[in-house]
Amino acid sequence: MLSSLGIVTPQYFTFGEDEPFLLESGATLGPVTIAYETYGQFNADRSNAILILHALSGSAHAAGYHSAEDAKPGWWDDCIGPGKAFDTERFFVICSNVLGSCYGSSGPSSLDPGTGRPYGLGFPVVTIGDMVRAQERLLDHLGIERLLCAAGGSMGGMQVLEWAAHHPGRLRAAIPLATTARHSPMLIALSEVGRQAIYADPAWNNGDYYGNGKKPDAGLAVARMVGHITYLSDESMQQKFGRRLQAREQYGYEFQTEFAVESYLKYNGNNFTRRFDANSYLYVTKAMDYFDLSQPTGTFAAAFAGSTAVKFLVVSFTSDWLYPSYHSKDLVRALHAVGADVTYLDIESSWGHDAFLLEVETMTRLLASFMDRLADEEGVRTP
Amino acid sequence: MLSSLGIVTPQYFTFGEDEPFLLESGATLGPVTIAYETYGQFNADRSNAILILHALSGSAHAAGYHSAEDAKPGWWDDCIGPGKAFDTERFFVICSNVLGSCYGSSGPSSLDPGTGRPYGLGFPVVTIGDMVRAQERLLDHLGIERLLCAAGGSMGGMQVLEWAAHHPGRLRAAIPLATTARHSPMLIALSEVGRQAIYADPAWNNGDYYGNGKKPDAGLAVARMVGHITYLSDESMQQKFGRRLQAREQYGYEFQTEFAVESYLKYNGNNFTRRFDANSYLYVTKAMDYFDLSQPTGTFAAAFAGSTAVKFLVVSFTSDWLYPSYHSKDLVRALHAVGADVTYLDIESSWGHDAFLLEVETMTRLLASFMDRLADEEGVRTP
Repeated sequence: MLSSLGIVTPQYFTFGEDEPFLLESGATLGPVTIAYETYGQFNADRSNAILILHALSGSAHAAGYHSAEDAKPGWWDDCIGPGKAFDTERFFVICSNVLGSCYGSSGPSSLDPGTGRPYGLGFPVVTIGDMVRAQERLLDHLGIERLLCAAGGSMGGMQVLEWAAHHPGRLRAAIPLATTARHSPMLIALSEVGRQAIYADPAWNNGDYYGNGKKPDAGLAVARMVGHITYLSDESMQQKFGRRLQAREQYGYEFQTEFAVESYLKYNGNNFTRRFDANSYLYVTKAMDYFDLSQPTGTFAAAFAGSTAVKFLVVSFTSDWLYPSYHSKDLVRALHAVGADVTYLDIESSWGHDAFLLEVETMTRLLASFMDRLADEEGVRTP
Repeated sequence: MLSSLGIVTPQYFTFGEDEPFLLESGATLGPVTIAYETYGQFNADRSNAILILHALSGSAHAAGYHSAEDAKPGWWDDCIGPGKAFDTERFFVICSNVLGSCYGSSGPSSLDPGTGRPYGLGFPVVTIGDMVRAQERLLDHLGIERLLCAAGGSMGGMQVLEWAAHHPGRLRAAIPLATTARHSPMLIALSEVGRQAIYADPAWNNGDYYGNGKKPDAGLAVARMVGHITYLSDESMQQKFGRRLQAREQYGYEFQTEFAVESYLKYNGNNFTRRFDANSYLYVTKAMDYFDLSQPTGTFAAAFAGSTAVKFLVVSFTSDWLYPSYHSKDLVRALHAVGADVTYLDIESSWGHDAFLLEVETMTRLLASFMDRLADEEGVRTP
């Protein structure tokens, strides 16, 4: 196992104190705080920056440990660190928590300076475009003119595509993994079921539950269970659980958790309520549902017409039924149509959507070789 | 459109008053009532009976109308009636509501004679095997020695397979549609999420809500929404809804139902709570999750070793991701291994799991020709 980054420290950037941040909806938000972490060092001309974008329930803590007591490192520690795919001895790696989340960036659980109480549903609905424009402010703050690369999977991949489509001058390469340029009705339906599970919880109280002593944990847990099913595949569930019973030999003929797969869902559903905010779940899923790069023209090609200088590495996974490969293929077709430089791989994997995090060996090889070539082609100096 | 059966009348058969019905769990139940309907007439030797088996949320009302005011006929009216695939001018068609349901058969909402109150969770957990053995009592009552055929889709198909595996002497043919001989962990996970949504509703009150003035409608609606997603396919959702907004032109940037697919889910979820009992949802899904014909030997072939005299028509649908075609292919392989007479079709359809009800033309042609040949081969006389 390659060495980790060791202890890393969360950082915060706040903007919009004087002039509030204008959102796509027309609403404004200010001040806006973005939580982020950085790993590695800038090189002389700050041309070695990589922006890592996280998925629905992720945070800025992508690598390393927050304290020596942490049981687990950041969510993409497998790929970020000295000698790893995103090599922190060569690159300056940034990961920022999205707007609307609950991990340090402004979101529904943040204090509304207007009322002195948490925003709740008073927080404005944000889009993937808003998340990315907030990240752009962070780049300005860090003095980064152009990213070497933006990379991420799932909702992280949507942000990558948003960067490439609407801010192509600010990145040299884009790595969207297991993602889509447009949320399909199936994806919207799955998001909506999760939201409905939260709405159905009386403790949700129309989003006003902070400090009530009771959170909509039951609803959020159900939403998360739906999510976990969609992150796996039929085949990986078969391999991981089969019809194995948990802690018993025979059917109990009662309504208890008895199959191993039920136990897995329940554990993960409950666990999630200790680390995630139900309102953030609503806001972040809504942002994903609104995501459609084919708008307003109706074609993806139009969205990427100005992105021909960006180098793309597009990756999908054969057993991912949440973001099936055809989403990536549609994207690649559009990128080819505008003459963009695209490498596309549809990786054979049984791990479903989670494959972008679990296929470590394949992803490491692929990302490392893409980053090597990119750094060479762009003449990026080591710090 | 072919003519319907017109007005039909629900019927009820009660047994186990003296000696209670022994369930697979070892528990007993008595008395047991089974709601059923029949269409058409017996022939002289009662050899023309077809048993139709319904899915999770179905009832005995498979065809015709209960009153002249009914907006819709029974759930499989497309295929049952004079001149239809299951031709009521030739066959005596029976459909019985499963044990554990809430449409007239004994279930958790029935009165427990021991307490004078509804059973609630006091109702014993039942299996697909128990449902079928209750139907066997109904056949005895109706004087049917051997069915010409048992047919059904989804959970109905599981009952068909249970009949063929464990009561092969009582049917000449079996038509399992869009089903499986063993619930996979993916199917168990989807069932469990629905159950967890019900448990999470405080109105569920551990199953004791009858007469409380408040039912766990919110939880049941979420469970049903999950179900509806699994009955459709990515492609059919695209065709049916796309990203169309319901009753508005632009994103509302608020947490209201705005996409057409959200509206569809919400409507169907809420509607379901007016016609189905949440506890029955628990019992019936549990019966499906327990279903595994490979037990106790570990192979499907062993289960069907005694079924070589039964003629099988097995049908799956290419876009059904709830009961994917490989389930049917595994079954067909086992049936071939024991030398059974099997016709298998994997029908190209974009309608997902619902295809067995929606592909009316294809199903009519297929079922009618199978039934014609079967009746000829078995020398079944018209009534």
